[in-house]
Amino acid sequence: MKKRYKVTIKPDEKTVWVLEGTTIYEAIEEAGIIIKSECGGSGVCGSCKVMVLDGQYEDHGSERFISQKELDKNNLLACRAVVKSNLTVDIPITSRLFEQKILTEGVEKEIEVSPWVQKYYVETPKPTLEDQQFDLDRILNTFQIQTNRKVQTNRKVCTDLSQPTQVSLDVLRLLPDALREEDFGVTVVLAGDEIIGLESGNKSEHCYGVAIDIGTTTVVGYLLDLLNGQELGVASRTNPQTSIGDDVVTRINYASTNQDGLEKLHEKIISCLNEIIDELVKEAGIQKSDIYEVTTVGNTTMNHLFLKLNPKYLALNPYVGVLREGLSSRAGELGIAINPHGRVYSMPNIAGFVGGDTVAVILASQIHKSKEIKFAIDIGTNGELVMGNRERLIACSTAAGPAFEGARITYGMRASNGAIEKVVIDKDDVEINTIGTSKPIGICGTALIDSIAELLKAGIIDKNGRMKKADELPDNTPSFIRKRVINHEHHRSSFVLVTGTMSRSGKDILLTQKDVRETQLAKGAIAAGYKILKDTLGIDDKDIKEVLLAGAFGNYIRREQAKRIGLLPDISTRRIKFIGNAAGSGAKMALISRKLRQEALEISNNTEYIELAVSKDFHKTFAEAMYFPEADTTH
Amino acid sequence: MKKRYKVTIKPDEKTVWVLEGTTIYEAIEEAGIIIKSECGGSGVCGSCKVMVLDGQYEDHGSERFISQKELDKNNLLACRAVVKSNLTVDIPITSRLFEQKILTEGVEKEIEVSPWVQKYYVETPKPTLEDQQFDLDRILNTFQIQTNRKVQTNRKVCTDLSQPTQVSLDVLRLLPDALREEDFGVTVVLAGDEIIGLESGNKSEHCYGVAIDIGTTTVVGYLLDLLNGQELGVASRTNPQTSIGDDVVTRINYASTNQDGLEKLHEKIISCLNEIIDELVKEAGIQKSDIYEVTTVGNTTMNHLFLKLNPKYLALNPYVGVLREGLSSRAGELGIAINPHGRVYSMPNIAGFVGGDTVAVILASQIHKSKEIKFAIDIGTNGELVMGNRERLIACSTAAGPAFEGARITYGMRASNGAIEKVVIDKDDVEINTIGTSKPIGICGTALIDSIAELLKAGIIDKNGRMKKADELPDNTPSFIRKRVINHEHHRSSFVLVTGTMSRSGKDILLTQKDVRETQLAKGAIAAGYKILKDTLGIDDKDIKEVLLAGAFGNYIRREQAKRIGLLPDISTRRIKFIGNAAGSGAKMALISRKLRQEALEISNNTEYIELAVSKDFHKTFAEAMYFPEADTTH
Repeated sequence: MKKRYKVTIKPDEKTVWVLEGTTIYEAIEEAGIIIKSECGGSGVCGSCKVMVLDGQYEDHGSERFISQKELDKNNLLACRAVVKSNLTVDIPITSRLFEQKILTEGVEKEIEVSPWVQKYYVETPKPTLEDQQFDLDRILNTFQIQTNRKVQTNRKVCTDLSQPTQVSLDVLRLLPDALREEDFGVTVVLAGDEIIGLESGNKSEHCYGVAIDIGTTTVVGYLLDLLNGQELGVASRTNPQTSIGDDVVTRINYASTNQDGLEKLHEKIISCLNEIIDELVKEAGIQKSDIYEVTTVGNTTMNHLFLKLNPKYLALNPYVGVLREGLSSRAGELGIAINPHGRVYSMPNIAGFVGGDTVAVILASQIHKSKEIKFAIDIGTNGELVMGNRERLIACSTAAGPAFEGARITYGMRASNGAIEKVVIDKDDVEINTIGTSKPIGICGTALIDSIAELLKAGIIDKNGRMKKADELPDNTPSFIRKRVINHEHHRSSFVLVTGTMSRSGKDILLTQKDVRETQLAKGAIAAGYKILKDTLGIDDKDIKEVLLAGAFGNYIRREQAKRIGLLPDISTRRIKFIGNAAGSGAKMALISRKLRQEALEISNNTEYIELAVSKDFHKTFAEAMYFPEADTTH
Repeated sequence: MKKRYKVTIKPDEKTVWVLEGTTIYEAIEEAGIIIKSECGGSGVCGSCKVMVLDGQYEDHGSERFISQKELDKNNLLACRAVVKSNLTVDIPITSRLFEQKILTEGVEKEIEVSPWVQKYYVETPKPTLEDQQFDLDRILNTFQIQTNRKVQTNRKVCTDLSQPTQVSLDVLRLLPDALREEDFGVTVVLAGDEIIGLESGNKSEHCYGVAIDIGTTTVVGYLLDLLNGQELGVASRTNPQTSIGDDVVTRINYASTNQDGLEKLHEKIISCLNEIIDELVKEAGIQKSDIYEVTTVGNTTMNHLFLKLNPKYLALNPYVGVLREGLSSRAGELGIAINPHGRVYSMPNIAGFVGGDTVAVILASQIHKSKEIKFAIDIGTNGELVMGNRERLIACSTAAGPAFEGARITYGMRASNGAIEKVVIDKDDVEINTIGTSKPIGICGTALIDSIAELLKAGIIDKNGRMKKADELPDNTPSFIRKRVINHEHHRSSFVLVTGTMSRSGKDILLTQKDVRETQLAKGAIAAGYKILKDTLGIDDKDIKEVLLAGAFGNYIRREQAKRIGLLPDISTRRIKFIGNAAGSGAKMALISRKLRQEALEISNNTEYIELAVSKDFHKTFAEAMYFPEADTTH
């Protein structure tokens, strides 16, 4: 059995256990951290530079991109270095993708920080008998004078500060006192061209926002400083709606069939957001009243439940939602505990099962601006697929089912402590890696893909997905494999991944024929969606410049193995890239850039949706896509 | 003593008592009804055609404009016919000004009915797997298709129906059910480009609005059908804030110095509006939920109290208000009991003491579009003056004080039952007319003006306002006058208008020296404002094409008498016109025409305000304006 090493990643303080022979690049991927790489870890782009702070490694080719002087300081390419002991590695900002890209000073230029919500300090002249302007006029006119002047002297400040044209009654009621409390100096809080808040004196240095990714399972919030876009904290919670149902359809049914069902689900997610905001505020030591905007992104169902829009018809044929567009609501109206005059912006959706999270994937990866055709995929219970370029973009949703989340798999489990996350059939043993330090309990999605890929290579599973019985195995099958192919009392044809002596429960952990069939259904649905998108665009694999893997599961997939089972297309691995938690990135982008928020709406408007159920070739395509690829088709 | 006759006006069912010798035109004016007249009642324009239904009259010149055939049917010019008995007269729609002009079918063309709030029925296609548009998209897209089609076939329907671009969360929550309840046909309620309501099925035939004139003393509401602009009812109440104070300054002080003072005043006016709306709805037999908009107009203080904006600084030098602009609020936010999704539009103001009522005067009289210079005046506790044309418009407010409302006048009273409203010194007697059938109790504003004008003519009051003593009277003073000039124990120099034998109390009703001084202050303030406006524009009396009298008091003024005391400028009476309750007209105009609502805002933006207190010549001008004109200057 191979050795396992602990890799600690700085400054994230994330830890993973990896098998001997793993590269630092792979370890970083397994930790769910997105590192820059043009070549997908093949050592030819030089983007994935890191520094090893502690521990042993073997470097096979970093010198092509790193000077000797730097190599001596343990700088190297993550994809070229194999872990040889417990190890600590630092990933510099310059090697990070997306999330950091939009948030740190170094690359700030790429995304100009110009939030929808901004504060601006106005020093108005005191009223006299010669100047009897109304309070509001006084502010509006001074605002105009000040911003015009600033534009001349410092173009950056005001290029996209809108002249206010709207103000609501509740803000007007604050106006006379706010204006006079600090000698007619007042901080105006703008959301676009509306004045949403007023604070006496100059409070323009304190303006914060929270971006929230409302996942079906996990909710993550990011606190951002709206002055410079810097991230001040992250907090997450399990979506409390999971107590009512793991998947969206269960929750929709609950909302539709129970009195106050929708109300309850809505309240749960609102409380969850408020808890996250509470934690963020406490950790960062800021005032809740200085948070003036929250942006949210989620799938269409999460979005509807969050806004308390009836989701009933999303689950009934023909699966129609209420609101596709982005919506700016008042925080008070939704019960979100930020500044009571603050706003909540929910990102737009594309279709009933292609939500704001997919808009975020497109926004974060800028497929809609790309000259080349790209293919983005987010695998969950539904696999959401997007294909195209700046000329045409199409999306579909495939009912992949929860196999990759461990459900319906005999020994399946989520990717948590004790889950086998990696399986390699070596020349003399079946090697596994388990998350954390527990003995293995079951297998998660990545190990499911690995084990099927390895059994395909070993000839134990055939193209049709049939698992051979012990007596059908090729003659050259090594005995350490042969003895694991069993005919289980209940599960019939099965492969023993871990024997009872090694497992937590003391029982064998198996991959069964049924598991293979479930996986075929899941990967078949996705592959069929992929084929139909290609056919709709009239293109071929070779026309696809990049495959982008988004979302929690996508980040952990081993691309070669996923290609082996036909889950990912037969495209050079260096063109298959991870883009991380694009949903969170999208919510942050919409929070700090009004231009990108507008782009998100354009993405929602312009992305075509294909309903696979009505595609005339779908059933045939799906049936064909369930086969596994021939061995020689992968490279 | 002269005889008095009762004149009943149809279809208004208003009744006034007039002195022998009064024309029907004067009787109509006294009833507060605005009748068309280009010439101010001098018999040369032929506009004031009426029909006497019952009673005697003498006609002196109607034949110039009315055919013999029509004369035989008792059609005549109101200004040419003298009342000779109790009489009933009908004023046809075609002889009415303003209020009727905007509301009746005959002249509808002049103001196109195109309200800010409109209903539109959308018949959307049912969703299928081939058409999975979101509910909102379904409505928006169908709306666009339907309205585009209609524009081609019937230009009138959609010329100014905005394509909706906004919708609020509370309306979205109604959407899925509203759409499905009547087979995907839904009535969209639009306020500009925002969807503010949804009703299942076709409810587009029922859409109403209420225009409300919030006077300091009286609140009047008009129910209008927003489909055709027709007025369906009127209801009024005394402004319940009068229980806290008669004038605006008392109310501002109450709001500023009492805890919850503003809240209380606000609640009072809101309840008042809700009572009026209740009455209108019941009388007309419509549903309150079919009222989607209320427009309000009032002076700046009334506007602030209505919106619950702190009015404190309106009463403190330099008299600054919070909000000048018009504001559209949600009915629910203000507690106005119409459709909960409805809107309330409060008309814009010009300055702290020149409010939305003055904007309404300008809007109703279209001074802002006039080539010629006009002068409009609304006399109350404050006299609001506007002068100019389409090129430049200036306004000021004069602290006229409450003399013309009967306050601070020894025997002063409001124009109610028992008030002397007219005084004429005949060749052999002092004739008076009293409102209603009661014996005289006191004198109201019009009689105050009359009596001073008559005493000026008789040489009893001199140019300086000094009332002569009996022994100073000219030798030719008739004895019936001479005996009324007394030196009263308390009031000193006084004139007996009514002797104790004829009055309700049994005591003499006097005009005192003090009353003359109060009147000089009041008319001096207005005349000074008039002079400063003229000077600012650099014009002279002769450049003023028309003088427009607005508001409750203005409608009852006898122009010749008002000119005699110098309250109105020395301009040909035929160029001095009544424009009625322009505040109410303005609120109605803004309710049924989005174009006029926009014009009101432009009026507010573009009308210059002059603060008389800082005008360097004000005190000198004011002092001079207190003198009465020389007898020979009137014509």
